[in-house]
Amino acid sequence: MSARPVLTNPRSDRVRSVRALSRRSVRQRQGLFLAEGPQAVREAVTHRPDVVRDLYADDTAAERYADLLAAARDAGVPTHDVSSEVLAAMCDTRQPQGLAAVCRPLDVDLDAALAARPDFVVVLTHVRDPGNAGTVIRGADASGAGAVLVSDASVDVYNPKVVRSTAGSLFHLPLVLGAPVDELLSRLRAAGLLLLAADGSGDQLLTDAPLERRHAWVMGNEAWGLPPQVRDGCDQVVRVPIYGLAESLNLAMAATVCLYASAGARASATQLSR
Amino acid sequence: MSARPVLTNPRSDRVRSVRALSRRSVRQRQGLFLAEGPQAVREAVTHRPDVVRDLYADDTAAERYADLLAAARDAGVPTHDVSSEVLAAMCDTRQPQGLAAVCRPLDVDLDAALAARPDFVVVLTHVRDPGNAGTVIRGADASGAGAVLVSDASVDVYNPKVVRSTAGSLFHLPLVLGAPVDELLSRLRAAGLLLLAADGSGDQLLTDAPLERRHAWVMGNEAWGLPPQVRDGCDQVVRVPIYGLAESLNLAMAATVCLYASAGARASATQLSR
Repeated sequence: MSARPVLTNPRSDRVRSVRALSRRSVRQRQGLFLAEGPQAVREAVTHRPDVVRDLYADDTAAERYADLLAAARDAGVPTHDVSSEVLAAMCDTRQPQGLAAVCRPLDVDLDAALAARPDFVVVLTHVRDPGNAGTVIRGADASGAGAVLVSDASVDVYNPKVVRSTAGSLFHLPLVLGAPVDELLSRLRAAGLLLLAADGSGDQLLTDAPLERRHAWVMGNEAWGLPPQVRDGCDQVVRVPIYGLAESLNLAMAATVCLYASAGARASATQLSR
Repeated sequence: MSARPVLTNPRSDRVRSVRALSRRSVRQRQGLFLAEGPQAVREAVTHRPDVVRDLYADDTAAERYADLLAAARDAGVPTHDVSSEVLAAMCDTRQPQGLAAVCRPLDVDLDAALAARPDFVVVLTHVRDPGNAGTVIRGADASGAGAVLVSDASVDVYNPKVVRSTAGSLFHLPLVLGAPVDELLSRLRAAGLLLLAADGSGDQLLTDAPLERRHAWVMGNEAWGLPPQVRDGCDQVVRVPIYGLAESLNLAMAATVCLYASAGARASATQLSR
């Protein structure tokens, strides 16, 4: 028998207000978003417990992820027992696997992201597809990028589908959100980063790009790429070579290849300087 | 006024039999699959008109893609005018954009794929997610891989979701389908290819893998990777380095990074030999 009250009413005000976080307007008004499933919740609790406002777990998850819940409580995160019906009613995902966390926004301002003097960062502009955006954030994390900057004309990174496809990487690296792309680029240039537009029309091949310099990858819409004025405002326009008959790579694949090229250049530079 | 009859009944036998191709059992029984949308149809007509049995276009598409329909007719492909309702009723996609093609299977046997002495190929086994499988085929095409081999314990490549996510690459490179993975691997080894298991547990870093040798990438399930006996049967187990806090890359991303490393090694070898 549980010593703590269990939330069992899927139609309660609390459940409705969590569920409403699937809408952008509600996220903005409340200043909150929802991380669903064990992977996202674990990364939130491990790396950013300061942004977790409430953690909800059903019976099965409370048992299966007891270590995670203990870590959350140790970090001062309020945890709540809920029925599986309540959890399902809160979530956008069909199978949240018994865990969800209501989080405060974790984005930082550009100065904070630049303070660590990143070797390379990614700028996303006019990206609309949640899966592509989230996968780019995951690839940026894996490749060791210093930050991801998402311009105002893009999908909301706190959208549940984006959060899900980052596979927890949302909680791993600095995110800068909501600034106009022109402002982002001029400030990155002022900070000494070379601006590399990733675009299939580029005259520079990725294999020849000067990745030993500090740089920012600038990536555009998944269907039509970068707006011409953004592309033309970058220092170089770089394309991933296509060796076969494919017309292109999708945004997430192209970004991953570019970011791993950056990571490889950094690894070589580090070895050389030893 | 059209001189040719227009199919207008979405409940006709012909429409039902095309729609039924969204089911694997029907595809296997009929020996047919459906390519939906202008990109897939264009690549089929351009590169493999021999496998296109019937091309269906609605009014708007017939006008917009007049060049494509002319090319199809020139190549001897039967084209059919249909109403938008008929096209929608035929397709799995919500927005087929007015075009669909019923195609015969285009996979080849392994001997045919190996006859061209490919520098590198990809083997997929136990892959279940259509989007990941299709994206790997697209990445294999873009990187210039010589073939994609999909074992029997995998998603059906002629599934509409796989076809869609290949973005036409299905029609670009040799596909070998349906053999048991053990047989594929032993025949690849006999053909002189080094077997490289791509797995996060690998002790060999991608940056140190001997990609100058002819090789086959062996990739497993999107959630749990390769079955241990398959992984252990490969010559080397290779992992993509993770520089940040991400636990892993998804299958399509990891495959793309590995394949582009192979393409880069080949490009270097070609330059050196000049």
